Amino acid sequence: MNETVVLSIEALSGRVEAIFRKAGLSSTHAAALSRVIVAGERDGCKSHGIYRIEGCLRTLKAGKVSADAEPVLDDDGTAVLRVAAGGGFSCAAFELGAPILAERAKRLGLAALVINDCTHFSALWPEVEVLTGMGVAALAMCPSYSTVAPAGGTRPLLGTNPMAFGWPRRGQPPYVFDFATSVAARGEIELHRRAGRPLPEGWALDAEGRPTTGPEAALAGAMLPFGGHKGSAISTMIELLAGAMIGDLTSSEALDVLGSTALAPRHGELILAFSPERFAAGRPGDPFQRAETLFEAIVGQGARLPSQRRFAARRRTMAEGIALTAAEADQLQRLEALGMDAVS
Amino acid sequence: MNETVVLSIEALSGRVEAIFRKAGLSSTHAAALSRVIVAGERDGCKSHGIYRIEGCLRTLKAGKVSADAEPVLDDDGTAVLRVAAGGGFSCAAFELGAPILAERAKRLGLAALVINDCTHFSALWPEVEVLTGMGVAALAMCPSYSTVAPAGGTRPLLGTNPMAFGWPRRGQPPYVFDFATSVAARGEIELHRRAGRPLPEGWALDAEGRPTTGPEAALAGAMLPFGGHKGSAISTMIELLAGAMIGDLTSSEALDVLGSTALAPRHGELILAFSPERFAAGRPGDPFQRAETLFEAIVGQGARLPSQRRFAARRRTMAEGIALTAAEADQLQRLEALGMDAVS
Repeated sequence: MNETVVLSIEALSGRVEAIFRKAGLSSTHAAALSRVIVAGERDGCKSHGIYRIEGCLRTLKAGKVSADAEPVLDDDGTAVLRVAAGGGFSCAAFELGAPILAERAKRLGLAALVINDCTHFSALWPEVEVLTGMGVAALAMCPSYSTVAPAGGTRPLLGTNPMAFGWPRRGQPPYVFDFATSVAARGEIELHRRAGRPLPEGWALDAEGRPTTGPEAALAGAMLPFGGHKGSAISTMIELLAGAMIGDLTSSEALDVLGSTALAPRHGELILAFSPERFAAGRPGDPFQRAETLFEAIVGQGARLPSQRRFAARRRTMAEGIALTAAEADQLQRLEALGMDAVS
Repeated sequence: MNETVVLSIEALSGRVEAIFRKAGLSSTHAAALSRVIVAGERDGCKSHGIYRIEGCLRTLKAGKVSADAEPVLDDDGTAVLRVAAGGGFSCAAFELGAPILAERAKRLGLAALVINDCTHFSALWPEVEVLTGMGVAALAMCPSYSTVAPAGGTRPLLGTNPMAFGWPRRGQPPYVFDFATSVAARGEIELHRRAGRPLPEGWALDAEGRPTTGPEAALAGAMLPFGGHKGSAISTMIELLAGAMIGDLTSSEALDVLGSTALAPRHGELILAFSPERFAAGRPGDPFQRAETLFEAIVGQGARLPSQRRFAARRRTMAEGIALTAAEADQLQRLEALGMDAVS
């Protein structure tokens, strides 16, 4: 049972999409979900790959996400576009809005896409990469669930609130970062728990708000923001801009509504797009070439650009296919056979 | 000589403005510089108060900033406004663009102000506070000088690249943060050097790129970004958006041009403004009231909102005046008497 199964990206995409279709998702949603999940596998991000299928099905089975809500675009011609996801997964809503967002940024220099009432489980890098592929820089952010205490606080309030940024590069993958504003992802604490290893200092508080290195205590308590009060401030900004400002749930409200962190959260998302050509117009130098000079200086002193491990995995899987462990292949077959019955 | 001199905000403003006028700055620049310097004193931010006058005069004396360039607005009606500072200080350029930026954000939902070719010495919080006073949320950022190594690197490349955010609050000062993307400000390392105290771990590298706790070694080497690779990525984003994208100098280029970190740097700045009313239109709840709920939850668990010490100092000085030490009062008199001759 230790054999690795290798699938082409197309083959895996078809199978994941079929699982979602069988579970009752509309073709729009099944295809959009499949794209981000297979992108995770393609890039070696196992935490955002086929592992996520079950969570999606569980959220669907719990009646917490719409299987077929068609996303609706609201565009009044200003710099703010809005897609009403209508309680569906975010992926299809993003795919509807993205090309119009890029077009608007190219026309006005800068534009924003608001997604409202979506169920969000994916990483943000697939989104900013779609936009860099359209020639714009992008900054995306969203709340999540209250699992993080503000710096100096004692209890979960903020979410792990991810922020992702992308900058287009010619002839190669974009400059992309995507990170949680917590010190660590919740999954990393879970991994320490399973391995029986203590957490590094500064990751978490226990249920009484005291610093802890115990994974169990941390899971019952609160995670901490990255970078102390600075990361805490950025996370708060994300609650404000991508929660209160866009008229959608903050991490605290998202947890209240769903009552569980075991299902994918419902909230909104904010994505800003910038046209470097428009911003640089009339100024000396090509913004893309000048960015390359910066990247060369970073790499030239031995530092790494973000996402390079992911891009290396992508090059490998594009050439050789996606390798699933026997357990992963079994789980995929189980989901194909049982559909919604495979999840509780 | 240990007596404290107390001045009203108006009296200090007049004296600071007169120093700049005597040094040859146009009335526009003298007034704008005085406003941000006195705001620093008013808020107890000594590092951005009258202490900065000398640096401004030194930069002027070195011929590295224009005394009278009138900032010029370029507004094509899109979401991107541009002010050409023409080699003058940034403050007057910001004051010209700010009201139009707020108006544009209210009309389009979102807008950006680019300031080009400015000499920048001020904190960013005075700017985001001007914008929150106009009813919009604001995010400001700019490069500085290469003094910070990217995470995993060995040499100065990035600047201390500040980022500031403001959100309007009714009947009280805004939610505001403003911080360097380096672990510490360069001034803090200087203070450790003078006090003969070692630096905390993780602040800096020596000239060979090795971690150091020696202030001298750090000043000859590189500072480190806050929050490891995450802060490094944010700092890189600032170089891209507020440097390469707006067609202005990156921190590395700014240092090359000026050849010294002793003078105020020449580069550009990017300020984004968001209209919460426009973003929240048609959605349930008032964004400002919902933000207050978040702030109450932060404070309610014993955490602090950023800038509270500054706002407390402001309440105090607004009521009681600004207290200068005898040494500060002497230095002010010296600058008044000698003007440009007071600096080398």
